[in-house]
Amino acid sequence: MSSGPRLASKRRTRTWGTDFALALSPQRDACIYPNVASTTEFNLSETAAVLSRTPAALDALLRGLPDTWVRRSEGNDTWSAFDIVGHLANLERTDWMARLRRILQDGEARPFERVDRFAQLKESQGKSLAQLLDDFARLRRENLAELQALNLQPDDFTRRGQHPALGVVTLAQLLATWAAHDLTHLHQLSRVMAYQYRDAVGPWSVFLGVLQCDGHSAPP
Amino acid sequence: MSSGPRLASKRRTRTWGTDFALALSPQRDACIYPNVASTTEFNLSETAAVLSRTPAALDALLRGLPDTWVRRSEGNDTWSAFDIVGHLANLERTDWMARLRRILQDGEARPFERVDRFAQLKESQGKSLAQLLDDFARLRRENLAELQALNLQPDDFTRRGQHPALGVVTLAQLLATWAAHDLTHLHQLSRVMAYQYRDAVGPWSVFLGVLQCDGHSAPP
Repeated sequence: MSSGPRLASKRRTRTWGTDFALALSPQRDACIYPNVASTTEFNLSETAAVLSRTPAALDALLRGLPDTWVRRSEGNDTWSAFDIVGHLANLERTDWMARLRRILQDGEARPFERVDRFAQLKESQGKSLAQLLDDFARLRRENLAELQALNLQPDDFTRRGQHPALGVVTLAQLLATWAAHDLTHLHQLSRVMAYQYRDAVGPWSVFLGVLQCDGHSAPP
Repeated sequence: MSSGPRLASKRRTRTWGTDFALALSPQRDACIYPNVASTTEFNLSETAAVLSRTPAALDALLRGLPDTWVRRSEGNDTWSAFDIVGHLANLERTDWMARLRRILQDGEARPFERVDRFAQLKESQGKSLAQLLDDFARLRRENLAELQALNLQPDDFTRRGQHPALGVVTLAQLLATWAAHDLTHLHQLSRVMAYQYRDAVGPWSVFLGVLQCDGHSAPP
């Protein structure tokens, strides 16, 4: 689906639309944001700025890397870089925009579907990392185009939905979590990769914070 | 300097040179590495594969982002994304290749210079993030070209140097640490960025591992 019934105002401010378009263009300069939100406050164009960059960042980091970095995990039942990219692609398909539409259509009346954190283990079978990176980039691009088309306004951000485990959440919290979820998996990815050199670095390991991290990821 | 006196063999194996060149090309496919080193074992071409990708990954992630993501830190005396990129650029100038040359020229006889972890706070003054990203990419490219020209062979990897705090280290450990250091700062960067949305995500914070990370970076 592309939009579905919208209950909130559809007024469009030219500035807001321009901000969003600029956020999707990595070429823009930071100085177009003279009045950024105060720390930890949600801002749609800032959120979109992160969301639009993650696929290219992962692509630049991972495409073509040898299997040591891509296919190895931290041991039993932990994820490799390959698994992480598959997970990100899977949630683009099943989670973020589906939950956003649910909030817009049903509010708190109908809880979100639960996320299958292991779907990618099956879904990625037979695919290459390059295919997963392509999938993720395409799905993210499509989702951001749909998000932009929704033309959300500030009073939409307080609309509420029902998370199956967390209870009431707002649309702004969902969007902020979408961006922070990219960052939590970038955090995990850098740790999983560094883990492959945990012995190779010798005595330097005491100085490398990433090797002291025992991981703290949990379901989104 | 470009090479300096070399004590080890200078024999060149065509395969090794080819591997290194391929490692520097992000377009190559992972399948050219049928016999990757076992976990946590140092491998020059695998190390170069990470080192060559970090500047583009940081560029894709950060260039043009609003100041919320780039200039904010985790509070007093912690680093922003801007500071982290400045630090990476600074160490390209002052640390990794200087230490490698020191090992080749002086072995354990002359300890490495100490690193100034705060040099970038002064060095980055008046620069934009875009300039720091450009600096880092150029310096890394130059360093990898110099590394490739040294044509290191497996028996060079056990050559020893003297770290001012850690004592004896090997050339392989230095190179492995160079790559792991990129990853430790990618780990830090994702945490610093996520921190800016620590409240915006609302109840989802319990599921976002990066928000549970209390940081563990220490001097390189």
